[in-house]
Amino acid sequence: MATPSLQTGSWQVRETALDPDTLGVAESVFALGNGHIGLRGALEETQPSVSRGTFLSGVYEHHPLAHPEEGYGAPERGEAIIGVADGAAIRVQVDGVALDVRETPPDTHERVLDLRAGTLDRRTAWTTPDGRRMRLHSTRLVSLAHRSVTATRWRLEAVDGPARVVVTSDLVANGIPPQVDNPDPRVAEALERPFEAGCSGRHRTGGHLVHRTRSTRIGVAAAVDHAVELSGGPAVPVDAVHTDGDDDRVVTTVVVDLAAGQSLDLVKVTAHAWSGRDPGEDLLDRAQAALAEAVDRGWPGLLADQRGVLEAYWEDADVEVDGDPELQDALRFALFQVLQAAAGVHDAPVGAKGLTGSGYSGHTFWDIDGFLMPVLTLLRPRDAARLLRWRTSGLDQARERARVLDLPGAAFPWRTISGEETSAYWPASTAAMHLNADISRSLRFWSDVTGRPLTEVGGVDVLVETARLWTGLAHHDHDGSAHLLGLTGPDEYTGVVDDNVFTVLMARWNLRAAAGACAAHPRDARRLGVDDDEPAQWLAVAAALHVPYDEVLGVHPANTGFTAYREWDFEAAPGPEPLQEHSHYLTLYRHQVVKQADLVQALWWCPEEFTAEQAARDVDYYERRTVRDSSLSAAVQSVACARVGHLDLAVDYLREAAFVDLRDLQGDTHQGLHLASLAGAWLALVSGLGGLHVDGEDLRLAPRLPDRLGRVRFRFRWRDRRLQVEITPQGTVLTAVDPDAGPLPVTVDGTPVTVEPGRPVTVPRVVDTPLLPAPTQPAGRAPRA
Amino acid sequence: MATPSLQTGSWQVRETALDPDTLGVAESVFALGNGHIGLRGALEETQPSVSRGTFLSGVYEHHPLAHPEEGYGAPERGEAIIGVADGAAIRVQVDGVALDVRETPPDTHERVLDLRAGTLDRRTAWTTPDGRRMRLHSTRLVSLAHRSVTATRWRLEAVDGPARVVVTSDLVANGIPPQVDNPDPRVAEALERPFEAGCSGRHRTGGHLVHRTRSTRIGVAAAVDHAVELSGGPAVPVDAVHTDGDDDRVVTTVVVDLAAGQSLDLVKVTAHAWSGRDPGEDLLDRAQAALAEAVDRGWPGLLADQRGVLEAYWEDADVEVDGDPELQDALRFALFQVLQAAAGVHDAPVGAKGLTGSGYSGHTFWDIDGFLMPVLTLLRPRDAARLLRWRTSGLDQARERARVLDLPGAAFPWRTISGEETSAYWPASTAAMHLNADISRSLRFWSDVTGRPLTEVGGVDVLVETARLWTGLAHHDHDGSAHLLGLTGPDEYTGVVDDNVFTVLMARWNLRAAAGACAAHPRDARRLGVDDDEPAQWLAVAAALHVPYDEVLGVHPANTGFTAYREWDFEAAPGPEPLQEHSHYLTLYRHQVVKQADLVQALWWCPEEFTAEQAARDVDYYERRTVRDSSLSAAVQSVACARVGHLDLAVDYLREAAFVDLRDLQGDTHQGLHLASLAGAWLALVSGLGGLHVDGEDLRLAPRLPDRLGRVRFRFRWRDRRLQVEITPQGTVLTAVDPDAGPLPVTVDGTPVTVEPGRPVTVPRVVDTPLLPAPTQPAGRAPRA
Repeated sequence: MATPSLQTGSWQVRETALDPDTLGVAESVFALGNGHIGLRGALEETQPSVSRGTFLSGVYEHHPLAHPEEGYGAPERGEAIIGVADGAAIRVQVDGVALDVRETPPDTHERVLDLRAGTLDRRTAWTTPDGRRMRLHSTRLVSLAHRSVTATRWRLEAVDGPARVVVTSDLVANGIPPQVDNPDPRVAEALERPFEAGCSGRHRTGGHLVHRTRSTRIGVAAAVDHAVELSGGPAVPVDAVHTDGDDDRVVTTVVVDLAAGQSLDLVKVTAHAWSGRDPGEDLLDRAQAALAEAVDRGWPGLLADQRGVLEAYWEDADVEVDGDPELQDALRFALFQVLQAAAGVHDAPVGAKGLTGSGYSGHTFWDIDGFLMPVLTLLRPRDAARLLRWRTSGLDQARERARVLDLPGAAFPWRTISGEETSAYWPASTAAMHLNADISRSLRFWSDVTGRPLTEVGGVDVLVETARLWTGLAHHDHDGSAHLLGLTGPDEYTGVVDDNVFTVLMARWNLRAAAGACAAHPRDARRLGVDDDEPAQWLAVAAALHVPYDEVLGVHPANTGFTAYREWDFEAAPGPEPLQEHSHYLTLYRHQVVKQADLVQALWWCPEEFTAEQAARDVDYYERRTVRDSSLSAAVQSVACARVGHLDLAVDYLREAAFVDLRDLQGDTHQGLHLASLAGAWLALVSGLGGLHVDGEDLRLAPRLPDRLGRVRFRFRWRDRRLQVEITPQGTVLTAVDPDAGPLPVTVDGTPVTVEPGRPVTVPRVVDTPLLPAPTQPAGRAPRA
Repeated sequence: MATPSLQTGSWQVRETALDPDTLGVAESVFALGNGHIGLRGALEETQPSVSRGTFLSGVYEHHPLAHPEEGYGAPERGEAIIGVADGAAIRVQVDGVALDVRETPPDTHERVLDLRAGTLDRRTAWTTPDGRRMRLHSTRLVSLAHRSVTATRWRLEAVDGPARVVVTSDLVANGIPPQVDNPDPRVAEALERPFEAGCSGRHRTGGHLVHRTRSTRIGVAAAVDHAVELSGGPAVPVDAVHTDGDDDRVVTTVVVDLAAGQSLDLVKVTAHAWSGRDPGEDLLDRAQAALAEAVDRGWPGLLADQRGVLEAYWEDADVEVDGDPELQDALRFALFQVLQAAAGVHDAPVGAKGLTGSGYSGHTFWDIDGFLMPVLTLLRPRDAARLLRWRTSGLDQARERARVLDLPGAAFPWRTISGEETSAYWPASTAAMHLNADISRSLRFWSDVTGRPLTEVGGVDVLVETARLWTGLAHHDHDGSAHLLGLTGPDEYTGVVDDNVFTVLMARWNLRAAAGACAAHPRDARRLGVDDDEPAQWLAVAAALHVPYDEVLGVHPANTGFTAYREWDFEAAPGPEPLQEHSHYLTLYRHQVVKQADLVQALWWCPEEFTAEQAARDVDYYERRTVRDSSLSAAVQSVACARVGHLDLAVDYLREAAFVDLRDLQGDTHQGLHLASLAGAWLALVSGLGGLHVDGEDLRLAPRLPDRLGRVRFRFRWRDRRLQVEITPQGTVLTAVDPDAGPLPVTVDGTPVTVEPGRPVTVPRVVDTPLLPAPTQPAGRAPRA
């Protein structure tokens, strides 16, 4: 697979040539979004393209889910995100010849994603077959300030001679075939043209479309308008612009003659509105109102608003890393994508790929609860709260799923858009019960970090119901111990096992957190039917849960028996492809080969359960057996390595997490970005090098500076106050960013300090001596990037 | 679900009324076959019907196998048995009114399956709307003597007045829609009209069709002819019979006027030939030659030949059970079905349902290797050898499957027709590696029983390659023990577990048997690349394999940890439906609930591995936890109960195994008969009450007589000599049936005796005192029937 040649620097990601082999990667990396709307980074002329389209968070369609051999509780209905009415296309003919990079290779080409402007800028120059030189300069944005709005300024200049220019600019529904990897033809059929047309309309410079999905009955309205100008003064003739179309299309055509040096300027604005409840007319009103507001604001206004949102964001979120400019750029890209994925989300989940592609059918996974959510909580707590409320709004569906599984409490869906379980392979989904504790953790983390009550995000209900789930899952043995049997931890190369340590420790945490939540919220507890005995039972189960330990090797087996499994022959591994592509689960499941951090993830999330020696030995053991065929792994390994003193390795993994998409390290960035890895990169910095750990009112830091980095600076929000942490060779400086904030207590390496505005605190640098030398990885599996 | 009201007695199974609720059951119970051709027991007029058609062993079609979530090594192509050109239909109109039991309910109706005649007889009387009384009497057979031939004598009598009769008799290809439960529409599409037409032809009284399957490219030729007569002498006018048709149909029409008391007699003979290699013309030649031979033999000849084959069979195979006439009849039905399933099979597997229905898509499973094959070996060793040769002919495919799984040796397919793996749910197929040892056992059993070398059935090759598979699967622990991890035993309610005892013991047996086979066949061993060290390695692995034992409870856990799993709440079970229909595998897999004998199956097949006390306790433990949601269980439980002295319970389970289809105990007999259960019933008698056990040259018996049975008599063939065992209250009489056979050594309850022709040996009755009282079963799960 080819590596994209994207350059970074100066808050930008730059493409300087169109590479057909990495087109899809660029479409994902250059995708724009605001958590509500997402737009793939395809060229305006739409071709060549790997996959393109506009997505709306929460707009999806059902499809059948056929299992060749049925199993009770296997979902019969799938869900897939679908492209909505897409306004990205602007095509142009010059003197009868299409400006298409395939037919007419450009003289020069450049695209720039600007992380402070929030725009994708494109400059392409062509010489037509007639020898006419044309320059295209487009700038595109999905508004972070105006949730429903997408806008493009598109400018075409006839450099050296007169040219007849015909521009067609589309808004098209049902027009882009979906990416479907399910071979059941009913799936493609359901997703091919998912929308029924409602009303549509056109006027001279634009129009609107209203549609509804056939099965999910989600209404989508889209409106478009164009402002057309010629440079140098002359008004565009009225009859130079007209709009045609039908129920599925609004096509605006501009026909003008450009003089040498003259430009045609098009500002295209689209607005989308959707709802699963409201009638189409209401949606159309909303889309048209948003469009009117954006048109009124004008292109300069939209640009300024965009920059304003980003200025505020970077003021909160920017990190600085001295000594590794590439990493510096990659971390900013990662933070930009976090914002794009979640800024405007409401009433819908964030998919594992945000809105940057239709990979994983747009489903949300624990990627979001486990990785994106803590970042949002520390940087954008209000976005986090909205997203948590979406999660907890699925509690009744999770209760029903638990009932189907004959379990008490609630079992949340492994992959979903609607809240219904849509996973087809249960050993790596239904059996991955840890998800429920991961969700509980994200709720409690938010409450701890913001200082706001759990009830604001529905957290008590979820903690109680997941505690009940764990109580139902725990098997009590003759000897008084309790076991979680036949489950699967994060590592998808080891499935259906007993006493998976990560799951056990998270369950224990969940049970205790639920008891704490009930004590703090007795009224809610009563509402949920929690009597006095129930929390005591939870605590008893938590205490009884069995954590296996291999006394001979002095490490935790990832699950009972793991350390006795056969070792994998890494030397014989045929290549960099994921092992699951050439090994059967039958083989993988009972070998000592780890797809992604599992036991090691427990070292991060449940540090209180491990002694320093255990952590050092466990890291050493699992580093040698982890292949990282999942993008969820590198950030976790980075944190764990940082905590046991392998700072160089921690930076290596941090780089891998941050570069996952810019360098297409997983080989599938064309399907969308790896949000968990991008969010994880920031967490690796903050929780790994910064040592951030949160428990109730306690905010703990343990800053470490790898020798290869000159300085690390990051910020986050704690109880509505921003704290800046600057780790330097001379020590770590803690600064209260907000001038009117109260004192901010924090524990640094075990020592309590209080940070007040205007009075930065410096703590001395700590340099650990690792208990063990830095481990090696399996052959060919050292950190990449 | 309704229970069919089939009566048995006098070597017959009788239906005395058409019950629309159990029509499908009757179609399976009344199916006729000879191992090569199978014909569902539908009415000649074809409707009403649940599913009907003619099957040829080995004629199947491919279909896509879509997995909603892909996994490496999951088969992408399915296989399904398909109905071939079907000649069962004979429809009649009398004075313009169809004689159809739905429109014109019969005055009387009876069908009789005759186990000695090998025919299905039908007598139905109608009164037409005009008041005309008509009597139909048909007799149908699938010839056990003429492999390719199916014949029906069909006689219609106008009882009390003149009647104009129009008969149409079909041979139709692509005419019967298949039963498809896979929701992927491509599956139904592939199977709907699976045949391309080749040549066809017609003459006045019949014709032929040649077809080829679209994907598997299997050619099928079918030819049909009719002999038409009128009772009382008058010749049938030439123009009263004619035949029409097209590429897919041969339709012979007879139009006659019957006087009162006169009958129309039709003898319809069809012949089929198929091949995956030969051209259609050759197949047509073969079908027409078979047809000509059958026509030449005539109806009385076909009947006589049929009776001749059955007389010989019953002479070899009949059992007598005094004191339980129902069981006596059911056992004869079971033995009849064993013959029908396997008598003529060649170059093809026997499906789990024989050719009695399209359930399980006609696939073969370990049902056949484990249950049918030992019966065939003891009763029809030449049929067994042909079937074993089919199995071993799949060795290269099994080697390739092992290679896909990154394992040495050979891994046979869990379900297949062609020899390719077609299972979609790997935890209950690919993980059920015991199949490979079961196949090895069936080969060695054949060699032991016949005294013929393993090489005659390809046995050395399979034993060697499966031993290599086990060597590859065995995980060696620090302490020198070897483990089989992450596999699934027979019990499909406990999957992906470690140290499944049945699998471990069968693997151990397989490894040792392979070493023995190499010692006995050194040249074959060398051909297979077995050096001097390899058998020693096998023996070392066999010795090292770990068998878990629960010292506290004093029982074998079915797998490591099983006895610590949570107990199932049987009282809360909602009904007689299989638990898998309302419980998720996640729940089932780690509860102490057993779908089918698993550890208990090891008590039967590996008795040398258990002390008498262990066996007694193990039976007691698993009886209380086994729900028998699989039809493979009752016979095994019967044997195990017999061996630990619970003779009454052994008979109860024997009855359940024998009545599985006559009483539709699994509720799915309409999809075809449960061959393994029917074969298992005989094994329960012979291996359970008879105590038959075979090991190399040793033939062991341990006859026991339950008080409720007055006498049990069975026969089997040992090294080409038939031995009769007659268990009576006075003792057991062993008789050499063949007058010219040599002395036959046999060990009875540990004492060697020699049986010679003309000198029956009587051994005294042994009455055991069971070590434990008879166990009870879970609520609602006591033996049925």
